Amino acid sequence: MNKSEVFERASKAKDAARLLSNLSTEVKNNALLAMADALEQETDTIIQSNKIDVEIGKKKNLPAALVDRLVLNESRIKGMADGLREVAELPDPVGKVISMWRRPNGLEIGRRRVPLGVVGIIYEARPNVTVDAAGLALKAGNAALLRGSSEAINSNKAIVKIIKSAARGKGIPPGAIELIERTDRKAVEEMMKLRGYIDVLIPRGGPGLIKAVVENSIVPVIETGAGNCHTYIEASADLKMAKAIAFNAKTHRPGVCNAMETLLVDKRIAQEFLPELVKVLQEAGVDIRGCEETCKIVTNIKRANEDDWSTEYLDLTLAVKIVNGIDEAIAHINKYSTKHSEAIVTRDYNMSRRFLEEVDAAAVYVNASTRFTDGNQFGLGAEMGISTQKLHARGPMGLEELTTTKFVIYGNGQIRK
Amino acid sequence: MNKSEVFERASKAKDAARLLSNLSTEVKNNALLAMADALEQETDTIIQSNKIDVEIGKKKNLPAALVDRLVLNESRIKGMADGLREVAELPDPVGKVISMWRRPNGLEIGRRRVPLGVVGIIYEARPNVTVDAAGLALKAGNAALLRGSSEAINSNKAIVKIIKSAARGKGIPPGAIELIERTDRKAVEEMMKLRGYIDVLIPRGGPGLIKAVVENSIVPVIETGAGNCHTYIEASADLKMAKAIAFNAKTHRPGVCNAMETLLVDKRIAQEFLPELVKVLQEAGVDIRGCEETCKIVTNIKRANEDDWSTEYLDLTLAVKIVNGIDEAIAHINKYSTKHSEAIVTRDYNMSRRFLEEVDAAAVYVNASTRFTDGNQFGLGAEMGISTQKLHARGPMGLEELTTTKFVIYGNGQIRK
Repeated sequence: MNKSEVFERASKAKDAARLLSNLSTEVKNNALLAMADALEQETDTIIQSNKIDVEIGKKKNLPAALVDRLVLNESRIKGMADGLREVAELPDPVGKVISMWRRPNGLEIGRRRVPLGVVGIIYEARPNVTVDAAGLALKAGNAALLRGSSEAINSNKAIVKIIKSAARGKGIPPGAIELIERTDRKAVEEMMKLRGYIDVLIPRGGPGLIKAVVENSIVPVIETGAGNCHTYIEASADLKMAKAIAFNAKTHRPGVCNAMETLLVDKRIAQEFLPELVKVLQEAGVDIRGCEETCKIVTNIKRANEDDWSTEYLDLTLAVKIVNGIDEAIAHINKYSTKHSEAIVTRDYNMSRRFLEEVDAAAVYVNASTRFTDGNQFGLGAEMGISTQKLHARGPMGLEELTTTKFVIYGNGQIRK
Repeated sequence: MNKSEVFERASKAKDAARLLSNLSTEVKNNALLAMADALEQETDTIIQSNKIDVEIGKKKNLPAALVDRLVLNESRIKGMADGLREVAELPDPVGKVISMWRRPNGLEIGRRRVPLGVVGIIYEARPNVTVDAAGLALKAGNAALLRGSSEAINSNKAIVKIIKSAARGKGIPPGAIELIERTDRKAVEEMMKLRGYIDVLIPRGGPGLIKAVVENSIVPVIETGAGNCHTYIEASADLKMAKAIAFNAKTHRPGVCNAMETLLVDKRIAQEFLPELVKVLQEAGVDIRGCEETCKIVTNIKRANEDDWSTEYLDLTLAVKIVNGIDEAIAHINKYSTKHSEAIVTRDYNMSRRFLEEVDAAAVYVNASTRFTDGNQFGLGAEMGISTQKLHARGPMGLEELTTTKFVIYGNGQIRK
């Protein structure tokens, strides 16, 4: 192993993690508050560095949406600082004994929550992730090893310098927040090999990034984000409610992972339900792609092809399929979904039970918009991302998901007979 | 993807998993009891098939210890059957709502335990793992995709045929227990690529197997087993207790992962403690390898080299190191341990607290033998292995660790504002 920047920073993070795991909640909270204050005090410095990124991005003709996510202004920086203050207010998961029991031989055995160690986060051009990830990792007693994308590198450097210095002033070890400044792909590849230094890698970004990390990392990975979410309007649904839920799930914020991508409509109500819904969706600018049956009912839409059922549009586009009852709806969802968020609208008790049981996803809804899949909306506090895998964390990942447990065993001389 | 045996069986397991997740506890328990009865009824058939494996093994000059683990006789088959009956008596983890709460907007959000899906287990020449793994997977609502080693293939085929048929008779879908009969390395490589079909891979075996799976699998892995365990005799220890614990941890069953491999002794008590302990260990056949200081106190032992500190002997061999206080002991453990089971013997309250806090391992003990790290000894019931990783499961993996959760959300028309 040559001593690259990635390795050096991972080593520093690992050293810091050992110290971080034993810090008191008070020390961590004071640091989070100091980091928040420092961000606000240094708003001008951050904006100056950010301007460099934004100018380079515009020269490179980055898509407008990407440039928009990159831009920092006073209100966004205040938002980041407030995020840290919210994390300071959340309960500290570390040290909590989840349960403890006594064995017949007198051994007292408990399960105690402890930090994971070093959390590696690989993300794209959103400088706010730098602050969110560092804050959540710190509160859960972990070191954060951050690797943002080249588009935000100047913003990220400025932000990390500020929050790191504020944290140090409150007794946080320097390796607790480490930004990898190399933005080439090789740096990510190196991170993926650092088993023993990085305890978990969380890729946050497009499907290409996530797939590459999942397939190549020997460090354990938590997969996040892809959301090909469905809403199924069952035959007994309150159609007014169904319309409101479908409209909200598609149009409220189409670019995020918990937005609806495919609408499934029971054929017994399709004729009554679809024309009106399609009308309001089209008025909101939604491009509709329907199955053959859908196109018979509403004619001014495109025809969906096989790819549409598995596409996460992240845009004002919606696939619509008419299904023959709940069996077909569930089979379609379990075949095409990314197991993120799935909803049924129904007034039938048994249908609601079957959907909750049989749909395999991180979040399964009855009579609500899938847009609620979010740490804050669930009441869990800020989140590190939404896990779509089954191991370790599933759904919004809050502070508890950034910890592991250890068994602590109190004896008085027990030996195994 | 060509339709290989591995793919075919994984597909069958995946189909079965969907059905298994909704089976009642009663159906699963009846199947487990029928499987147990069938094993006992078919004892002769199993022993006949097992004899073929044992003869081939002897001809191949397999090590005696390996042949011993391979042999099945009436009492071992009864043991396997009783294991299934114990699993039937354990509480069913599936369907349990861990917590549920109401949000200000009226949404009721709960976290429900659900099966993982398809659990792949890769293991070596121990036919009892076939039964244990299938039973635990079934009780937790999962399909088991088993891949044992070539040395036990005839035994495994006979066992799976019997338990599968008994399970089917009680309404368990046929793909619930699938044995991959190909025993070449390629079969394991194929399993490691079946993301989307296999939900988790659990390698149970030697370090070579575990390393290969951890490094090459794109299916999530739970790492098990390696145990380079330490016991630290702190200066204030009750030396009689320390002697009993150290002796037990080393000699009770040296070939298993929770046995002690290195003893750390505080230098203030080394002169008093070591000669007597070494004497009884040597009488029990233990080969001692000491650090420089240890060799000054006890002269009739080998000198340890750097490799000894990181070796899991799994044998009657013990490395001994004299340390200058708890800081050196903890630093040594955190440097060399595999994070499995670590113990301190002490009468000092603060030393016990520091050890529990600062040692990073799945199980950390005060005043007890590390031999207790085991699902049954902890009171958790039968186990699928002992996880030495931090993600998802840490320590003995029982039925709960073979499940994941999903959020179930009950609404009455909520949309995101």
